[in-house]
Amino acid sequence: MNKHIATALPGSSKRSNSHSLLLRRIGIDTYQEPVIYMRQDCHVCRSEGFEAQSRILVKHQSGSIFATLNVVKNDWLLPGDVGLSEAAWQMLKAAEGDSVELSHPLPLASLGDVRAKLYGKHLEPDDYRHIIGDIAARRYSDVDLSAFIAACAGDRMALDEVISLTKAMIASGDELSWNAAPIMDKHCVGGLPGNRTTLLVVPIVAAFGLTMPKTSSRAITSPAGTADTMETLAPVSLGLGEMRKVVEREGGCVAWGGSVNLSPADDVLIRIERALDIDGEGQLVASVLSKKAAAGSTHVVIDIPVGETAKVRSFEAAGSLSKLLSTVGRAVGLEVQATISDGSQPVGRGIGPALEAKDVLSVLRNESNAPEDLRERALILAGQILELSRSVPQGQGSRTAAQILADGCAWRKFYAICEAQGGFREPGRAEFSHLVSAPFKGVVTAIDNRKLGRAAKLTGAPKAKTAGLELHAPISTVVEPEQPLYTLHAETRGELEYALEYVRSNDGILNIQET
Amino acid sequence: MNKHIATALPGSSKRSNSHSLLLRRIGIDTYQEPVIYMRQDCHVCRSEGFEAQSRILVKHQSGSIFATLNVVKNDWLLPGDVGLSEAAWQMLKAAEGDSVELSHPLPLASLGDVRAKLYGKHLEPDDYRHIIGDIAARRYSDVDLSAFIAACAGDRMALDEVISLTKAMIASGDELSWNAAPIMDKHCVGGLPGNRTTLLVVPIVAAFGLTMPKTSSRAITSPAGTADTMETLAPVSLGLGEMRKVVEREGGCVAWGGSVNLSPADDVLIRIERALDIDGEGQLVASVLSKKAAAGSTHVVIDIPVGETAKVRSFEAAGSLSKLLSTVGRAVGLEVQATISDGSQPVGRGIGPALEAKDVLSVLRNESNAPEDLRERALILAGQILELSRSVPQGQGSRTAAQILADGCAWRKFYAICEAQGGFREPGRAEFSHLVSAPFKGVVTAIDNRKLGRAAKLTGAPKAKTAGLELHAPISTVVEPEQPLYTLHAETRGELEYALEYVRSNDGILNIQET
Repeated sequence: MNKHIATALPGSSKRSNSHSLLLRRIGIDTYQEPVIYMRQDCHVCRSEGFEAQSRILVKHQSGSIFATLNVVKNDWLLPGDVGLSEAAWQMLKAAEGDSVELSHPLPLASLGDVRAKLYGKHLEPDDYRHIIGDIAARRYSDVDLSAFIAACAGDRMALDEVISLTKAMIASGDELSWNAAPIMDKHCVGGLPGNRTTLLVVPIVAAFGLTMPKTSSRAITSPAGTADTMETLAPVSLGLGEMRKVVEREGGCVAWGGSVNLSPADDVLIRIERALDIDGEGQLVASVLSKKAAAGSTHVVIDIPVGETAKVRSFEAAGSLSKLLSTVGRAVGLEVQATISDGSQPVGRGIGPALEAKDVLSVLRNESNAPEDLRERALILAGQILELSRSVPQGQGSRTAAQILADGCAWRKFYAICEAQGGFREPGRAEFSHLVSAPFKGVVTAIDNRKLGRAAKLTGAPKAKTAGLELHAPISTVVEPEQPLYTLHAETRGELEYALEYVRSNDGILNIQET
Repeated sequence: MNKHIATALPGSSKRSNSHSLLLRRIGIDTYQEPVIYMRQDCHVCRSEGFEAQSRILVKHQSGSIFATLNVVKNDWLLPGDVGLSEAAWQMLKAAEGDSVELSHPLPLASLGDVRAKLYGKHLEPDDYRHIIGDIAARRYSDVDLSAFIAACAGDRMALDEVISLTKAMIASGDELSWNAAPIMDKHCVGGLPGNRTTLLVVPIVAAFGLTMPKTSSRAITSPAGTADTMETLAPVSLGLGEMRKVVEREGGCVAWGGSVNLSPADDVLIRIERALDIDGEGQLVASVLSKKAAAGSTHVVIDIPVGETAKVRSFEAAGSLSKLLSTVGRAVGLEVQATISDGSQPVGRGIGPALEAKDVLSVLRNESNAPEDLRERALILAGQILELSRSVPQGQGSRTAAQILADGCAWRKFYAICEAQGGFREPGRAEFSHLVSAPFKGVVTAIDNRKLGRAAKLTGAPKAKTAGLELHAPISTVVEPEQPLYTLHAETRGELEYALEYVRSNDGILNIQET
């Protein structure tokens, strides 16, 4: 018989709460990694053998989280107190002065699977479920997340593994269901500045009579996300109940996805993928499709812009991505239609929430100077959605969509959706602006989407809703000296100056070939 | 002719020092990652578009570093100030209130190579040089380091890549050279508690007449490193000049490696490998051999303990590792002899600096109760070093070493080395101790090295030099009820209590089979 030893020790007075400390909100934003700050001379630190970078299990009456330790050697943190980073504070739903117990967490079994994957092992559905479950519960440190992303990058995932990952991500959060079928959806892989087709596609599709409950994201690193743009026209922070009401009444909505908890592991992974600038095909597909499937969609059109400064840079890559999206989509119950588009330059004229909203409105209102590229892209996508739903014959989608737009149905539907979401409003206009013009005669041959986006961000977008950039000279424009290239808009003179400084010191935002 | 546009803008008053802020040491230990703390409302944060987790180039008069941004939302950091983590503070050699300029660093080109490696590309020597150069200069974030380690894990490195990596790591720091040949060295892969053979091997080899300038590390996660143990017997923080003097006079030394800058990239990588619990064969080999080659060694004996709770867990793995060590060693000018040993339990009796030093002294002094296992392991290793140097015939090394030990030469040499390093001293004894004894009659069948090490750490080791644990019942010991199993030693009653609490609540430290 094998027995684990129970050493015969004299009893010691149980020092109750010996590992209990008081919480302080110290306002440090570490982005999403939960960090706990403890004093070096703290008795818990010493008795538990905690060191900087130790992973710590923080137990609070409301629940528990894993956090990474940073050790404080100064007196700004009082003895007996521990600080929490903003992410940790929000996860724990704690109050100032609450007491917490700290201990070593058990090693995460799923990290063993990550190591196995790094060593070339094929992982099973259960393995992905455990990994993604731990990631969604924020049990992975940033370093762990990076290793998982690396383990999956570079075609290291077999097709069935991508499917397992996608299913695991769907199961990690809420799953919506709708009293209608089909449920149409759209997505754009790697956004282009100004590409706000969603705000046109949703009303066209809904006006046609299909159901399209669209959730969109806010900007993370770009000057505007679809939700930011929509917010200049109507409220977007809808709870699930409100969203249902809008969709029941109007057939569609454009809500912020942040108020529903769809594929939460995705949000955690995306942040590290961005830091690493790694976006493996398998993880990209799982990310996109898990959000759509969790939202209860059945049919999705996916726009893949291809261009030198876009996310997908070759038609070959786009083709392979498109095939994988369809195959994995089928496996998780989604009919997916991928479509490849031009990703060489921004779409429309505005970059920034209100400026993009103006482009959208001018297309919806059939204004004569409405940006033709935005209109065309929206009609193609809307047409594909109509065809994918089998409601219109192949080849007729785009024409049908154009009709719905031309006769004002799309605009009326959009207005009705806005009203249902809480009320339509006209986007505002920034107080300060500066026109940048051509220094010599020539042709615009290229536009750096990234630099243009950065300039727009420096004006204050997306926080400053009316700030941003208006492009007057898309690729192929023949410009005369002093002809307008783009206008910077800002809500304060200081922000306009910041953007101007950047523009002055950065060549190649627009490339002009002298003629 | 292609021209980048120089936009015609009205001049604006150059706001000099607009991006300059004052440094504050805020005493946060993030381990090695340099972190910078900036206020959310800071004008530099806003104008540069910095966000939590942004990588920032911090320029100071003494040089510049890359740091990761944490955004502060409270008032403990004053407007106009920025805080630095301890790692960042030390790297920048800054003073309180110094001014720094902050900007976006250019993207690191070598991270492109890391991504390429993740996507399966074979990297060239120059690629590894750039990667390791950036890592040694601390330009990689923890997330970047994790991706590089993951990219190299799991047999993804070809032999020539391991050689390239090793050479790049050697070149990343100082390289010592000695006025003698051969230069002997030893290393143990994945330390076993109490395995302080170095303190026996060095005096034996030096007494024989060979040169062995040994640098050792302090404990990072274990209860004692070789340098910690040696420090209870003599000073170990020797500068390069002092070290040379000792070696010239006595032929050997046991100095702390921290005062010389050998393969600094290794120190950065090891920390993340430990957090991930990933130690790819290629990186392990590069790590070990780069330190040895940079130290100017020519011949190295490498001890690979194999055991269930040791770093290397199978003889097969040890064999493959041993072969790779020899091949890569040859490529970087090192003659390597790997030797596989038993890694199933601690070596000697003591665990903790002074307790291990006592074991060493009792072997050196040929005391009758000296731990036989420690003595034997040291003689085997010393013998192999003698044979590797070609000074004694094959098969005669161990016997020669035993002779040097038995006739007191090793002890006299060790004493002389200690004196040369600053003076020999006897290790102290802790004031508090507690004996843990067997609860029933049986046989000790297994020992968990990790749990034992943890208990020893909780007593205060290695900071408390005399603290730790003394093992009385190694594997196969037949124990009667109440027979001593191990003794805990501590310098304070509180620490003894912490260790006891852990021992009480952790089964399986020693496994006893009832008889």
